[in-house]
Amino acid sequence: MSMNGAESLVHTLLGSGVDTCFANPGTSEMHFVAALDRVKGMRCVLGLFEGVVTGAADGYARVAGKPAATLLHCGPGLGNALANLHNGRRSNTMMVNCVGDQATYHRPLDAPLTADTEGWARGVSGWVRTSTRAAHVGADVAVAVQAARTSPGQIATLILPSDTCWDAGGEVARPLPVPEAPTVSPHVITECARVLRGNEKTMILLGNAALEADTLADAHRIAAATGAGLLASGGTRRTARGRGRHPINRVPYPVDQSVAAFKDVKHVILVGALKPVIFFAYPNKPGTPVPDDATVHVLTRPEHDQAAALAALADELGAPKVPPPAYGAKKQPARGAITTENFAQSLAALMPENAIIADESITFGRAFYPNTHDAPPHDWMNVGGGAIGGGMPLATGAAVAASGRRVINLEADGSAMYTVQALWTQAREKLDVTTVIFSNRKYAILLHELANVGANPGRTALDMLDLGNPDLDFVRLANGMGVEGARADTMEKFNDLFAASVARPGPFLIELVI
Amino acid sequence: MSMNGAESLVHTLLGSGVDTCFANPGTSEMHFVAALDRVKGMRCVLGLFEGVVTGAADGYARVAGKPAATLLHCGPGLGNALANLHNGRRSNTMMVNCVGDQATYHRPLDAPLTADTEGWARGVSGWVRTSTRAAHVGADVAVAVQAARTSPGQIATLILPSDTCWDAGGEVARPLPVPEAPTVSPHVITECARVLRGNEKTMILLGNAALEADTLADAHRIAAATGAGLLASGGTRRTARGRGRHPINRVPYPVDQSVAAFKDVKHVILVGALKPVIFFAYPNKPGTPVPDDATVHVLTRPEHDQAAALAALADELGAPKVPPPAYGAKKQPARGAITTENFAQSLAALMPENAIIADESITFGRAFYPNTHDAPPHDWMNVGGGAIGGGMPLATGAAVAASGRRVINLEADGSAMYTVQALWTQAREKLDVTTVIFSNRKYAILLHELANVGANPGRTALDMLDLGNPDLDFVRLANGMGVEGARADTMEKFNDLFAASVARPGPFLIELVI
Repeated sequence: MSMNGAESLVHTLLGSGVDTCFANPGTSEMHFVAALDRVKGMRCVLGLFEGVVTGAADGYARVAGKPAATLLHCGPGLGNALANLHNGRRSNTMMVNCVGDQATYHRPLDAPLTADTEGWARGVSGWVRTSTRAAHVGADVAVAVQAARTSPGQIATLILPSDTCWDAGGEVARPLPVPEAPTVSPHVITECARVLRGNEKTMILLGNAALEADTLADAHRIAAATGAGLLASGGTRRTARGRGRHPINRVPYPVDQSVAAFKDVKHVILVGALKPVIFFAYPNKPGTPVPDDATVHVLTRPEHDQAAALAALADELGAPKVPPPAYGAKKQPARGAITTENFAQSLAALMPENAIIADESITFGRAFYPNTHDAPPHDWMNVGGGAIGGGMPLATGAAVAASGRRVINLEADGSAMYTVQALWTQAREKLDVTTVIFSNRKYAILLHELANVGANPGRTALDMLDLGNPDLDFVRLANGMGVEGARADTMEKFNDLFAASVARPGPFLIELVI
Repeated sequence: MSMNGAESLVHTLLGSGVDTCFANPGTSEMHFVAALDRVKGMRCVLGLFEGVVTGAADGYARVAGKPAATLLHCGPGLGNALANLHNGRRSNTMMVNCVGDQATYHRPLDAPLTADTEGWARGVSGWVRTSTRAAHVGADVAVAVQAARTSPGQIATLILPSDTCWDAGGEVARPLPVPEAPTVSPHVITECARVLRGNEKTMILLGNAALEADTLADAHRIAAATGAGLLASGGTRRTARGRGRHPINRVPYPVDQSVAAFKDVKHVILVGALKPVIFFAYPNKPGTPVPDDATVHVLTRPEHDQAAALAALADELGAPKVPPPAYGAKKQPARGAITTENFAQSLAALMPENAIIADESITFGRAFYPNTHDAPPHDWMNVGGGAIGGGMPLATGAAVAASGRRVINLEADGSAMYTVQALWTQAREKLDVTTVIFSNRKYAILLHELANVGANPGRTALDMLDLGNPDLDFVRLANGMGVEGARADTMEKFNDLFAASVARPGPFLIELVI
């Protein structure tokens, strides 16, 4: 069978289990697009902007547990994708980027769109390769999928000069085996058990796959048996939460609260998490919340088998099972003023079972997570790397992966505007996403930060952090992209809109004026 | 006088003539923002997305003839800015990027937003430096401005770790001299004159500053005296056009038309332009329109003094002055069907004197440029590097620089969605921009490209290039960002809306359904 490089690419992706492609194609990807007609089985989801494409692939992989492909156009298209690739890298997300580029023999002519594609890819990818001929494309992408799926997951970027796609001689490659997550050696288990049996204050910090429901149950066995504290690292990929599951709080974002959470801690045990770091330096504040005299122990790195290690440690400690908390009656939706606590109460009361939360609510969202432990069972996702503009794409991709589950996107207004084009993809794909925009009409986090650095802002500084003048109208923006929406300025109105939206298929946007 | 690094930065920028800053700040830039209260004179223009910021700085510099500063947040913020920095680089645009980043002592901790800031900057910048202490910031930014203003203009990126901004000890640096554009040696003039006096078909290709009104007049002297052809390079920074000026056509974008434009040419003389390259490789098509047996001569590189060289060459040839074409009566607005020719006719009839056109009209715009030579005098700007999403920011920045002149943004619908957030900045700054969206609800250029590569598209491929389902409603999108707008589906309706919009201050958007 004779095929071109692009056809071998699509065949190999499908054979390796990658059957969803988020795409914003250009001229150099036309053979890939044409191949989709001849090779059946790939679901293609179009994004109007590349940041939507890679953010959606991030959300997809977190829910599907396998990578999506992306299709991007040349260096500048990859450039537009970088912020959400950065977020994906920080969440150890599986992703296979296919970046079309200048033909091998055309690149030396330095045509206008020629850019440093490989250089830009390197900073966000665990694996980068440029195909050099059609016959190699199948083998190259098989390795890319293997790299993406290698624990804890990583971003693999394959750059495809256009002639490697249109030339004949494409060869389909067989899927490569995905290496199992490594296990830790027994002496690591016994050493961590020894620390936990001591009388010094210990904090267990969990990240990555350690935040699944079963793994959290074992972490709670350990905590109950030893008195150790439990925290999740700040930017979590996906945390299993709600009734019937074990609650866990996160390392707080504000530097002072973060430091307080580790007060007097003498030992930190890392389980799939890295040593915590404060988001930014501030004059005369520490760079990490971990006290100088504390010892950091590594039970598992992010790539290890988290479940096996936590179970082994709990067994080593002879820790009995602990039931999840028995919460009282289900909450009622809140009435009255729109506050962060009231919103959390309504969210816990009204979210359907098995929902997925994509949280980029920034300042107004501070009470959401701690006040929803007793919500119906759900998954909670954060933007991984702190690059704002991750939330709406993340929700979009999660909804593509999670047919039948409601995705709830909690989104600050300033952040929403970076990748607002995601709404169009939600309308086009009829995705079950309820977006709540927290419209405070300012970069509220930056007002806090301005205070943090000791500044007393005047008119010019305040103008730079103000999103009013003119006010953004998110309902019209949503309508303009085919998504229905409405505005709420009371909790009662919000409750009605939210309950209606989660009860019917398709996307809906609620602008909550706060 | 004691000041911090951020204050020395703002003082030095102002002292070096940089008094406009396009900004999308984050935490690491709060000292810069705070300094704006204490140091008066900097006009700050907020963008909701970094691609708006850098595209606007590009448009500003093309009109103002001097650089703006940008303010960006960490590596991911620079990532979002890269596509329009790429476009700016290809137009040799002057720009000074100030990128706030992790504090020098915090970077080793690899906090979540830490990324390859310097690596990403390098591919789009002619000059990159990272400040290492507050006392150096003033001197560093003085060199950055000098680099940006060095002919033909370039992008200078200064990365500012946050402690270099908040530490005391900032020192204001004096502005550095901007080197004059180099002149070419006399034997280059005589050699080009010799070629032009020969009997072989010769094409003079102009780019960069060779497209000013006076320079074009000298180019026409040479063409009239020698029979040489004249063309402008494809992506032009700013071309002086309209009545009272000398017309020049551009190298066509489509490969076959581009090749036809250079048919039988034996000599190409480059004047501020580079040897033309086809945008993309296509199977069995050439990479450049210049015939293999043609000789390429360089009168001037982009950095040379274009006006001096063209005047000297015209004098060497003894070429008499040529008046600009005497066009007939002013055109009347077109009636009837919406076609590319009819639109061009209405544009030429209705644009006010001294307008600035920011053109990202892609496929539908093919008749606009060739049919507006007889319009009132105006400037025409293209997106420089082929990365779509340049047009709306370019118009925004041009309007900031060109108070009192109307900016007309000709914008394809697909391209508009990459940086549509620019409309909010237009509303906030009350900029005199009329945006015309050509709404064909598809990536029309990619349908041509699919045909170019020999594909016969099926359902899946067509879906990937379709922007309908749902249709974008640009009037609602504009309203959502505070810009008034209306839809036109006849030339008559368009004429009325357009005439009204250019006669009153502030932004307006017309969605032209084609």
